[in-house]
Formats: sequence, structure tokens, C-alpha cells
Amino acid sequence: MRKIRVGVAGYGVIGQRLADGIALQGDMELVGIADLSPTLSIRALKEKGMPYDLYLVEGADQTKFDALGIPVSGTFNELVDKVDIMLDSSPGGVGAKNKELYKSKGVKAIFQGGEKNSVADVFFHGYANFEKGLNQDYLKLTSCNTTGLIRAVDCLDREFGGIERVSITIIRRVADPGDYHRGLTNALQIDKAPSHQAEDLMTIMPHIEATGILVHTPVTHGHIITVLATGKQKITKEMALQAFRKHPRIRVVKIDDGFHGNASFFRYARDLGNARGDMYEIGLWEDSIVESGDSIMFAINIPQESVTIPETIDAVRAATGIQTTRETGTAETNKYLKCMVR
Amino acid sequence: MRKIRVGVAGYGVIGQRLADGIALQGDMELVGIADLSPTLSIRALKEKGMPYDLYLVEGADQTKFDALGIPVSGTFNELVDKVDIMLDSSPGGVGAKNKELYKSKGVKAIFQGGEKNSVADVFFHGYANFEKGLNQDYLKLTSCNTTGLIRAVDCLDREFGGIERVSITIIRRVADPGDYHRGLTNALQIDKAPSHQAEDLMTIMPHIEATGILVHTPVTHGHIITVLATGKQKITKEMALQAFRKHPRIRVVKIDDGFHGNASFFRYARDLGNARGDMYEIGLWEDSIVESGDSIMFAINIPQESVTIPETIDAVRAATGIQTTRETGTAETNKYLKCMVR
Amino acid sequence: MRKIRVGVAGYGVIGQRLADGIALQGDMELVGIADLSPTLSIRALKEKGMPYDLYLVEGADQTKFDALGIPVSGTFNELVDKVDIMLDSSPGGVGAKNKELYKSKGVKAIFQGGEKNSVADVFFHGYANFEKGLNQDYLKLTSCNTTGLIRAVDCLDREFGGIERVSITIIRRVADPGDYHRGLTNALQIDKAPSHQAEDLMTIMPHIEATGILVHTPVTHGHIITVLATGKQKITKEMALQAFRKHPRIRVVKIDDGFHGNASFFRYARDLGNARGDMYEIGLWEDSIVESGDSIMFAINIPQESVTIPETIDAVRAATGIQTTRETGTAETNKYLKCMVR
Amino acid sequence: MRKIRVGVAGYGVIGQRLADGIALQGDMELVGIADLSPTLSIRALKEKGMPYDLYLVEGADQTKFDALGIPVSGTFNELVDKVDIMLDSSPGGVGAKNKELYKSKGVKAIFQGGEKNSVADVFFHGYANFEKGLNQDYLKLTSCNTTGLIRAVDCLDREFGGIERVSITIIRRVADPGDYHRGLTNALQIDKAPSHQAEDLMTIMPHIEATGILVHTPVTHGHIITVLATGKQKITKEMALQAFRKHPRIRVVKIDDGFHGNASFFRYARDLGNARGDMYEIGLWEDSIVESGDSIMFAINIPQESVTIPETIDAVRAATGIQTTRETGTAETNKYLKCMVR
Repeated sequence: MRKIRVGVAGYGVIGQRLADGIALQGDMELVGIADLSPTLSIRALKEKGMPYDLYLVEGADQTKFDALGIPVSGTFNELVDKVDIMLDSSPGGVGAKNKELYKSKGVKAIFQGGEKNSVADVFFHGYANFEKGLNQDYLKLTSCNTTGLIRAVDCLDREFGGIERVSITIIRRVADPGDYHRGLTNALQIDKAPSHQAEDLMTIMPHIEATGILVHTPVTHGHIITVLATGKQKITKEMALQAFRKHPRIRVVKIDDGFHGNASFFRYARDLGNARGDMYEIGLWEDSIVESGDSIMFAINIPQESVTIPETIDAVRAATGIQTTRETGTAETNKYLKCMVR
Repeated sequence: MRKIRVGVAGYGVIGQRLADGIALQGDMELVGIADLSPTLSIRALKEKGMPYDLYLVEGADQTKFDALGIPVSGTFNELVDKVDIMLDSSPGGVGAKNKELYKSKGVKAIFQGGEKNSVADVFFHGYANFEKGLNQDYLKLTSCNTTGLIRAVDCLDREFGGIERVSITIIRRVADPGDYHRGLTNALQIDKAPSHQAEDLMTIMPHIEATGILVHTPVTHGHIITVLATGKQKITKEMALQAFRKHPRIRVVKIDDGFHGNASFFRYARDLGNARGDMYEIGLWEDSIVESGDSIMFAINIPQESVTIPETIDAVRAATGIQTTRETGTAETNKYLKCMVR
Repeated sequence: MRKIRVGVAGYGVIGQRLADGIALQGDMELVGIADLSPTLSIRALKEKGMPYDLYLVEGADQTKFDALGIPVSGTFNELVDKVDIMLDSSPGGVGAKNKELYKSKGVKAIFQGGEKNSVADVFFHGYANFEKGLNQDYLKLTSCNTTGLIRAVDCLDREFGGIERVSITIIRRVADPGDYHRGLTNALQIDKAPSHQAEDLMTIMPHIEATGILVHTPVTHGHIITVLATGKQKITKEMALQAFRKHPRIRVVKIDDGFHGNASFFRYARDLGNARGDMYEIGLWEDSIVESGDSIMFAINIPQESVTIPETIDAVRAATGIQTTRETGTAETNKYLKCMVR
Repeated sequence: MRKIRVGVAGYGVIGQRLADGIALQGDMELVGIADLSPTLSIRALKEKGMPYDLYLVEGADQTKFDALGIPVSGTFNELVDKVDIMLDSSPGGVGAKNKELYKSKGVKAIFQGGEKNSVADVFFHGYANFEKGLNQDYLKLTSCNTTGLIRAVDCLDREFGGIERVSITIIRRVADPGDYHRGLTNALQIDKAPSHQAEDLMTIMPHIEATGILVHTPVTHGHIITVLATGKQKITKEMALQAFRKHPRIRVVKIDDGFHGNASFFRYARDLGNARGDMYEIGLWEDSIVESGDSIMFAINIPQESVTIPETIDAVRAATGIQTTRETGTAETNKYLKCMVR
């Protein structure tokens, strides 16, 4: 079977990881990546020997790349001509503009959470609504927090006959490592409630009533979300634990084993030798799970830089139709990304 | 009427504020404070001209105080002899030892949250169980988070015929301004659930089932707690807001007015000219309140250094019996501390 | 003698402190303050009972103030009409525009460090060049770091026959308590060398050759600057210490006494009962002083929110000519601000 | 030629990196690593498939490893029997105890900066005093800051006929990513001067007079050190730059290229695909270099987790005598670690 040809627009925090993730898929081929300037990430690509071909988007100044000896393979237009599908991780808003180009060339595309929902036909999550994305042209991924949150809620929802209500508190990291353009110093900043993540969850899983509060914190490694979920039936701690442990994209850990917080996952992923210290799985603390009346409460860890990569690759499988079910679509992604192989 | 004579043991973060608070009460007299070493706080007391008399606890080296020209009024023993009641804000565990002395001299005492519950006859909160503290010898205050949390929950509980269930997420500051002996850098640290604050709430308000998760964050000004409360009757946002607005120790604010997070309360209190930038009220964000099914969710801000001062002074009123009801006991404290006078 | 009538433009971090500082001067009268919006600081002024009269600058929407019950005393224009001198702590750039108004009305003004040097006739520091400001119309203050740095360098310069060369490393706080619009998270950020503070020092003290490097750090309380100074004669640690100890705006401290870092000064100022936890003096660590060949190295602490207040008030004395020498000009300011009264 | 057999004691932050570094050397063989408990790092080793054999130190409870299915290859004693040289990165103080074992078995050892100098025959730096380590039994490496600092100072010292005086300001990271046991929150903490790094530099390069001040900052990625160096001859910015650019363990960068601070190096190393996001080179900002009289001032970045790895491997070459000169000893290390291959 011919491999799906994939391009990546925007080689930033997400774009680099999408490129690396696609390069690992046995049934996909990374044709190239596109960007505007010789950023640190592009310079690193050069220092690594250009494992991926670079194309320049409109407005790029090629002389800057030439001066640094960075080889350029063509224009963004030329990249789009060569692919079946684009993964668009351009800065927020640019994707909507790019879509016109994709459309004119009959190329499918997957957008990231920074774009408006209207950019796509389907607001997509690999586990929660894979079938809705099947053979569609334009999908938009849920944002990092929503992607991780839905993994956990969908897991309980399917296993235990339906979740009815969810309340969340999002303790959000405010910047990525290496960010200087945004930051927060010695303050917790609160957003107006309800958080968009609760609303997004309801869009993807409309049978659930969700609300929540988001607080920004001055850290860079991983969000923590506390979730209170009420099912049609009572879910005990033991039941929840069993379900979470079977999920390939949920890593169940204990504080006593050394997972003291969000930074432990980052440290662990670095020690695993994962590229960039990334982790595809969300973390779930076994010793955070408590029952409250009919509800169950627990805390998860969201590795913001890498958590959406698997679901984005699921989206490629759905949109191109190379896998036709949630089960096989996510399983193929998990196999190539080595998600919690057990 | 003779003023109640009060002493303070331990002139640290809490002890200083207790001393200042007592000094403001028209019906109380601050006899003195006791400490061990010429800490920065004691040096500041000296630079201010010794507004409070200093007594030395056992083990103190008076020559160190003499060398700095800090006048000493006597021993801890002598201080206890002169008072009706001691406010004990010694380091955790020392209070239990001090209690022996208080007992031998027939002096009442109020302990802070760092001591074990067993040190006291009653685990006390001015609004939630004032009557239990009436004429008792030894009371222990709830900790800072629990004190603020109970204010809000008790407020709804009394106003709307009973709260049945509470789930909390505590986003905790990890150090006070000026702390170097403890800290956290670029990490969120999670504690095993349920948090002790949920359990303490149930001790004080046994008709409520409470649970929760606590996460430490690298900031110094104020905890934020999200609360999900389920009442016997449905409580709407408007109902909750009305109740909170009437409470003298709850300050209802809006993000749009500039209260973006925990540090805004600190900034505002400094601009108010409050001593040390302290605030006695908890903050409550109007725009954080959301309804979830039959439940109501909201976020509060806990100024950790000063929040327990009013309830500790309530405790003096209860233990000494100078006020005999929750209403008059808290009202007198509010009057002297100028809590949200409206 | 008639008191000098002073107005303050911009009631932000600096403006509030200027207003408070002027209100303490026996020979000055604070006529009022001017601002644009009902910020938290203005709301706090209202909650305090309007100790200062409020005037509105052009573009202000008075209905917003009316809705909050905040009394307005007039327009900015009217304020300027009533004063001898304006302290302009408007946002950077606005001061230059305001100057046209001051000029048209023949009112003197002192600008803060955020304005360009060209806004003023003299770039001013109370200790280093008081005489240059005498009877001038428009002075601009050095910025917070430069103000504190020059205090220390000028102190050695005068005492020991001249400093020839200075190299500094500025470890800068990146935001003030309560700031959310700027911040830095888990990063040290470096500026291109030389730092403007080194260049500003040379403008004020042209006989010195200065250079330096500035690094931003994610903290809110106080900058630390290390200074390496070379004099015409060798300055020993003991000599430097003697000089620093006599300076009314330098507070010499020891790590062993509990001054472990920048936050200790903030903690100490809060414990002193200083309004807002402010400190007018820079800190200087006795145990940071080391000799290096013919040079002397030491570290100072700059309380960024309040450090420029004394020198700004010196500037009022110079510009209005109510004091005519550096010695009496700074001494009057120190007396009313109680700077290190010994 | 037979490969040098190397063991690593202590598989923590440094030990893991030493093991990875040794595994890359063509002329060395990593026999195994030793540790006490199934830490996160050991669990990660297991999840990676045990690329390195694990030996247990005295006091380890093997049943804990068995319960987790972690294979154990033997005791610490048995590891030491199999090697020519041990790299000891045990917790501070343990190395001195281990030395007795090494001595009894005639095994050489390299200790890290946490041990006392007296543990070793030579206090070692690959570039500054390689020859002193030749065929010695026990070497101790300089600490991370000193290692990086000496690279830069030694570079100028050799190139320009001698450095006479150095003054440093160390802006230190306070914890590593994943640390919870130590941290600092919203504070800069100062140490008594002179810093031990200045003193250590003088021990290694006794012809230089050095002093300095160290300030701890609440960040986790990389120290920044500002260095003021005075040579026997005047060193210009251009001269310094030329020298730094030729050094295989110094990476010269510009702020304008995106290297805004310490976190940029971490980000760049992650993007390079370096294991753990590590970097062996120190960073040096071209736009931080300024001349001050006869002296030159500049800022360097120290990646604290990985910077000592190359010099430790140099130490293996020196102690075992497989390379006999500074030039070939460091060149072999650079070749296998791919340090700034140009």
C-alpha cells in the first residue's frame, strides 16, 4: 500500500513533534516541513543534518537561510502539491488562511487547537469521536488540556455505561521551557468560568454536562487537572483504576514511587531517553483518586508539548480512511509511537 | 469591665499578626509576646521602639538580646503569670509542651493549626462552631486554608438550609514572602488525597461529606481553592452571590475590576495601607461562580498569613466568655479589625 | 514659609509612593493626584476615604468613577494650575506629552526613569549631582537600579578620593507584586551589554568608566547588583564598610542576622510596619564585600518600588530651590522619610 | 587495545549522564552502574530494557527490585572487581567511604564536586591541568560552575599570555528539573563571599587571583556567570571572541539569534535531539562581551546537569594514561561526545 504523504506547516513546539511523530509511522511518509524564519528550531534541524526537507512559506526571506547554509527544498505551495494531507500547526489564525490553499489543491488538513472550530468540519478526538472524522477533509484537534481530559473521561464513560457530569479544576502551566515572550511571576492567575476546556468537552461528548475553573501557575512542565466525574452508575476507586490501567495513553503512577508532581513526568521522560523529554501519555496519580458520594475524583498530568501528537496522528488515519475504526485507528498510532506498550 | 489580658507565644508570621490584632481590640490588652531568638521580626520590633513587651522562652540566650540593645521584660513563665489567656503560635509541637505550663497556672490557651487536634478540647472556627468553644480552656484553630474554606461553606450552609457535599481543589502557595528554608521551583507538587482540609471541614461540620485534592505551587501570596458544593436545595449563582456579599469576612471581587489572581489581593491590601499588606477577608471571584447540575462551583483566595487572625480572636471571646453567641462574638472582632465594614 | 505645592501625575506603583512621600514632607503640600481609570489603586484610595484629591486626565471617563462613588476634584489641567511642581509618573512617553502642558503653565516637573533623557534639562540624582538640578525647571530621575547603584558608588567616590572604574552585574526582578501583564517563568534572560544602568552612571558621574551585564530573573522583590569598583586609592573592606554605614540611604546588613536575600528586606519592611512593605534604603550585605586586587566588590539590594522616592523628593528641593546644597537637600528628605535615623 | 572497563557508582542526575557518556567512548566499556533504591531513574532504565547492568550497593533491599522485575547483576563489590576505574557520583560524602573499597581492590576512581578535595590526589580539570592527573589513582572533578568557568578562563589564559585576575558573579539555578526536595520561591538568595568557585579556580590555576559573589535564583535550567578577567595584555572583544569560537566546549551564540537566556540552550538541546536535552558545551553570548579598561567582561551559561561529563571522561583518560597530553586527551573525548564538531 502506498504510504500517506504528510506535510507539516509550522515547525514550532507542536510542529516539530508532529514531524517526529509522523516520521515514526510505518504507513506514512513525512514529505517536509514549512516555516517562515530561521528560528532556533530550524537551526537545530540544520545542525542535525536536515533529517526533514524544509519549505518556505510566503513572506520568508530565503537569503537569511542561505546565509546560514540551511538548504531549502521549495515553497510552501510546492510542499502542499506533494502531499495527501497537511498537519497545520501554524500560529493561531494562520491555519484558516492556509486552508484556502489546501482547498484549492484538494489537500486534506488537520488543524491544532489554536484555530477556531469553524476552520474544520469536525472537532476531533481520536478516542472520543474517531468515526466522525472518517474520510472528512478538515479536522481540528482538541487543545492539549482537552485532549488529555477527554482521554480520561472517555475511558470511564465507555467502561461504566456513561458519565453524566464533570467538574474540573485546571492548574495550568503558563509557558513552555524556552519561552520568554510570555510568563507569570509569583502569581496564580484565574480565568473567568467556565473554562473553555469544559465547554470543548461538551462539544465532543454532548451527553455530558461539564463545567470548570482554570488557574494559571508559574511553571513550564505539565498541567494538572482535577476531575470530579459522576456516572450513571457509582464508580469506585478500584473500578476507575482498573479502567485507567488498561488505557494505552494513560500512565498510572504513585506518589510513593517518586512521581511527586508534574516535573516528575518530565524528569522520567528525559531518563527514558524520549526525544526532547516528551511523553505521549497523560499521567494519572493512583493516590489522588477519591470517592465523593456517587462521584469519583482524581488528578491527571498533561504534558502540554506532546499530548496532542497521538490524537493528531489518529486524525490522519481517520481523515484519509486508512483505518476505519476507533479501535484500529488508535491502535496503529499507539504501536508506532510505543504508547504504554505492555 | 476589665480587659482580657492576652499573651502571644512565638512572634513569627502568625504571632506578629496575632499581637497586632489583639492590640486593636477594645476589650483586650496585649500583655506581651514571647520568643527565643533575635529574629528579623524581633529586630524589627526593636527598630519600631518596642511597642510590645518581650519575654524570653526557655533556652533563649539573653546576652544576644542585650548585645543588640533589645529590652527584655521577663521570662515566658512571668508572661504566663500575667495573662488570662495565651495565643500560642509557637513552631508546631512546641504548643503541646507549653500547654503543660498553661495548665499548671490555670491559664487558657488558643493553639494554631500546626498543633495536633488532641492539644485542645475543641477544634474551633468562629463562624462554624463558636458555641462549642464557649468557656472552654483549650481551643485549636483550623489551619489557614480550612479557616477560609469553612467561612464560605458555612455561609452557604446557614443561608440555604444545609450543604451536603463538598469537593475541593486546593492550589496552595508553598512559602511565605521571605522564606528561604522551604520552596519549590518550576514544579507543581501533589499530595495524597483526600487533603486534610477536607477532613478538617468534616470534623467541624460533621453533617457534610467532603473530599479534595491539594497541589502545591511555587508562589508566595495566597492559596486559591475551588469549591464544588451541593446543597439540600439547588443554589443558583445569584443566591450564592447574595449570601457571600453579606459576609463580613468575604470580599467579593471581579476579574474585570483588576483582581486577576492571588497577587491582586496582596497588591490591593498594600495599596489600602494595611499593615504588612495583610487582608483578613478571603477573596471570592464573582466571575468564577458556575452552576453544575444541582451543585455550585466557585473559587476563593486565602491570604495565608492573616486569614486566621479574626477567628483566633473570636476564639478568645468564646473561651473567655466575654461574648456568648456566634453573632456577637464575630461582630465584635469584625468591628475592631474593620472587616469589610459596609 | 509657604509650602511647596506638589501634584502627582499617574497613581501607579511609583505615583502612589510619591504621593505618600510628599505627604510626609513638612515643607510640601500634596495638592492632588491625577489618573485615567478606576484602577485597583484608585479603588483602594476610595476605600481609604480619599486622603488625596483625585483629578482626571484627558480621556478619562468620569461616569466610571461616579458609578463607583469615587469623588473627582477636577481635571488634570486644574490640578496643574494649583501646583508649583508636578511629579510625573505617567506611563513611559506620556510624560513628554504632559511637559507641553507644564511648560504652557510655567509649572516645573520631575520625570521618572521611564521617560527619555531629552524630556528634562538635567538627569538627576540627589546625592551625585544635586547642584546641577538647582532651580532648573525639568529634571529626570535615574531609574530604580541606577538610583541605588549611584548611592553606593557616590558614597565611595566622595569618601575615598574618586572612583575610576565600575563593573556591574544586575540580577533584576522581572515584575512587581501584583503584575500579570509581564513575567518570566523558570528562565534567566540576558540583555545585550553594556546595560543602560552602566551608561546612565557615566552620564551622572562622567569621571567614571562603567560597564555591566543585566540578567532578568523570575522574582518580584528587589534587584541585586554586584559592583566591582576601582578607586584612585586602594579601598579595603573595612574602609568601604565604614563609609556605607554612615550613609542614611544605605542599610548595611549581614546574612547571619537573617538577611538571606532580596525577600528578607521585603519581609523586614513589612515587619517594621512600613506602608506597603516599602523600604527607602538600599541594602548592602557586609558579608558580600571582598577585595580583588586594587578593587572592591560588593552586593546591594534595590527595592524597586520605593528606592527612587527619596531622590525624587530631593529633586523637588533642588528644582524649587528650597534647599540649595546636596547636604541640606538630602538631609531634609531623610528627616521626613525617616531614612536610617540613627 | 583492550578497552578501559568503567563502572559508575550512583545513578542519579550525574551518574546517568556519566554512564551514557562512557557508553559512547570507543576506547571504554561501561561494565555497569550501582545504586541503592528503585528510584525513578532506575525504573526508567528498566522501562528502556536495561541497557546497563545494575549492581546493588550495601544496604539495598533486593526484594524491592525483584518485585518490580528489575534484574540485578550483582553487588557493588562485584562491580568494582570487574573494572579498571570507578566514576563515583554517589551522594556527597559517600564517595569518601567508597574510596576505601576502591583502594583495597586497587581500582582507580574519579570523584565529583560534592566530595571534599581531600578524597583525591588531584583536583582536576581536563583543559586546565590534564597533566597533573596523568596516571594518578584518585582525581576529583571541579563542580559544574567551576568546570564551565575554567573552560572560558583557561581559554583566554592560554591564548593571550596569561590571565592575572578574575571577578565573577554567579547567578545560580537552585534545583534541577524534577527536584522537589529543594527549591526557592520568589527570592534571590545570596551566599557569603567569596564564592567557593572563585577559590576553586585559584586552586586549579594558582597564578590567578579570583573572587566572586554567588546568588541563587528560582530556576532549574542552567547557571549564568558573568566574568571580568584581566590579562597580562589587553584582550579586546574581537580577540576574546576568536579564542572562544575555536574552543570545542564553548558554544558562542547571539541574543538576536534567539538565545535569550539559559532556557534557550535547554530548548535548543531538546530540539537537537540530545538525550535528556543535555548539552556538553557551555554557552557564551557574543553580545555580552564588553571591555572595561584593561579587562574583558562576558557572560557564560552552564548546563549544570551535563557540563562536567566531558571533563570527567578526560579524567578517565588521564588517570588510566590512555592519552598522555591535554590535547589528545580532550580531543578524544570531544570526538566521541561530538562536542561542537565543526
